[in-house]
Amino acid sequence: MSILVVGSVAFDSIETPHGMVDHCLGGAATHFALAASYFTEVRVIAVVGEDFTAGHEAVLTRRGIDTRGIERAKGLSFHWKGSYTGNLNEATTLGTDLNVFSTFAPKIPEAYVDSEYLFLANIDPVLQARVREQMTGVRMTCGDTMNYWIADHRENLEAVLRRLDVLLINDGEARMLSGEHNLVRAAELIMSMGPKSLVIKHGEYGATAFFSDRSFADTPKLHPFRAPALPLDEVVDPTGAGDSFAGGFYGYIASQAVFTPEVFRTAMFYGGVMGSFAVERFGTERLQAISEEEIEDRFRLFQEISHLAFART
Amino acid sequence: MSILVVGSVAFDSIETPHGMVDHCLGGAATHFALAASYFTEVRVIAVVGEDFTAGHEAVLTRRGIDTRGIERAKGLSFHWKGSYTGNLNEATTLGTDLNVFSTFAPKIPEAYVDSEYLFLANIDPVLQARVREQMTGVRMTCGDTMNYWIADHRENLEAVLRRLDVLLINDGEARMLSGEHNLVRAAELIMSMGPKSLVIKHGEYGATAFFSDRSFADTPKLHPFRAPALPLDEVVDPTGAGDSFAGGFYGYIASQAVFTPEVFRTAMFYGGVMGSFAVERFGTERLQAISEEEIEDRFRLFQEISHLAFART
Repeated sequence: MSILVVGSVAFDSIETPHGMVDHCLGGAATHFALAASYFTEVRVIAVVGEDFTAGHEAVLTRRGIDTRGIERAKGLSFHWKGSYTGNLNEATTLGTDLNVFSTFAPKIPEAYVDSEYLFLANIDPVLQARVREQMTGVRMTCGDTMNYWIADHRENLEAVLRRLDVLLINDGEARMLSGEHNLVRAAELIMSMGPKSLVIKHGEYGATAFFSDRSFADTPKLHPFRAPALPLDEVVDPTGAGDSFAGGFYGYIASQAVFTPEVFRTAMFYGGVMGSFAVERFGTERLQAISEEEIEDRFRLFQEISHLAFART
Repeated sequence: MSILVVGSVAFDSIETPHGMVDHCLGGAATHFALAASYFTEVRVIAVVGEDFTAGHEAVLTRRGIDTRGIERAKGLSFHWKGSYTGNLNEATTLGTDLNVFSTFAPKIPEAYVDSEYLFLANIDPVLQARVREQMTGVRMTCGDTMNYWIADHRENLEAVLRRLDVLLINDGEARMLSGEHNLVRAAELIMSMGPKSLVIKHGEYGATAFFSDRSFADTPKLHPFRAPALPLDEVVDPTGAGDSFAGGFYGYIASQAVFTPEVFRTAMFYGGVMGSFAVERFGTERLQAISEEEIEDRFRLFQEISHLAFART
């Protein structure tokens, strides 16, 4: 089934210990869409500038991604400049040029209205809410956010949280949003704000899903679920790892006929799988060409490194 | 089979957001021995002062722990004073009184010489080496250390590392010992210093085991293995969590007739299980009385929160 994602399609200039790239294709919606495209049909709503070429668009369309919702505006595309040193879990932002993104007003093409799954990537919660309101027929809504919106746009963000089925954030964001250091209590507080389920990403340590009684119609209260990250001896570029996790996670969910705890757990593993591919190359390079076999091999590897008595077949 | 542990039996004065305790029984060897006692026979080598009463000793002997190697010296026992605030992963040491520990010279009782498994808890590597040298007949040696020895007693520590089968340390110690931030590369560097296998503990995020080709005689190179920690909404006192992990981990290994990758993986889970019990109460209170059923229930819970398609039986 189809996922509609609204978020940034942008250019990134990135420096890591492995080198640097200038103006490579990036943005949360781009990483998400590419990762999700291996599982299901994806449609994108975003705005780009005149520097977004047919070649850039082909990166998405080659993966079967529907780009009709990507609006062209006068001016330059959103541009993020960042660097990673030593600790590859944390980026230092060197510059953010919103450009055409500063006046972005998401429009939903007629052809997108029947989308069953909605993903609200990390953008202004006012825009997230506007898209959510128009997509009344979706089966599920999943969203992301970041420290900036939590700190300075709290009320707008809370309106979005009330309409989410699943919220995906990282440790720091969960602690900031809840005002609570303990992650289990933080999860309870955040879920009381609206999201039926919560996925907290721990970077190199994996991710934890928290289910509430409301997550599944006929399932009693469940324990949390922990999915590992792959221990990697080389991370070329961590940019977009979280969005790629979200793409693998949500793409898998959308590919399944029903939503069950089993599907949720498996989705957590596919999230880790796609995140582990994303960081192998700069920008979206690795996400552009992964074989089905590579994905299934890595999925088995994730089981092998986390399951007792798991033997390779 | 029997484990011989050498390390500290001490008193702890601890303050956490849940309250404070003064001079409760603690020390690395104490936590380790209690946790391991649920799996196998345990013998302790340590030194205590005149403040160590028959009541304190009974905490150990009630669990069947052999205390004949605990030497009584004139003066006071080792005393550690620490506090935890906000982030329960990190203790602030308020005071360390070595007392009788400052002149500790481990003596191995005749009755301990046939011990099959040796655990060198976190003490001066000179003492660790001295015990290791005398225990020539052991099947396996596992050890722990801390930042202080890594930074200022490097050469002595390296002599111990060369004689270890398994080293258990945390993230920060692994990075400090290897001078490498990436944990996979850190693991490779550390294993090149001697240990055949390495367990890196990530606190609330669980632990990762790294196996080398030498870990098992007839097993080719293995992937790393990640064991979860239980997400807890309440941590009363984190003191001794790492030593309890080590006790559950090594106790399980010593209880098995053979050492296989499967045993190693299962031991990682029992490590997490015992660590999760330890933090539920101050000091060693929780470790003193856990039922077999509680341990097996929690072991199943660890599988439930980390395994795809795991159903409670």
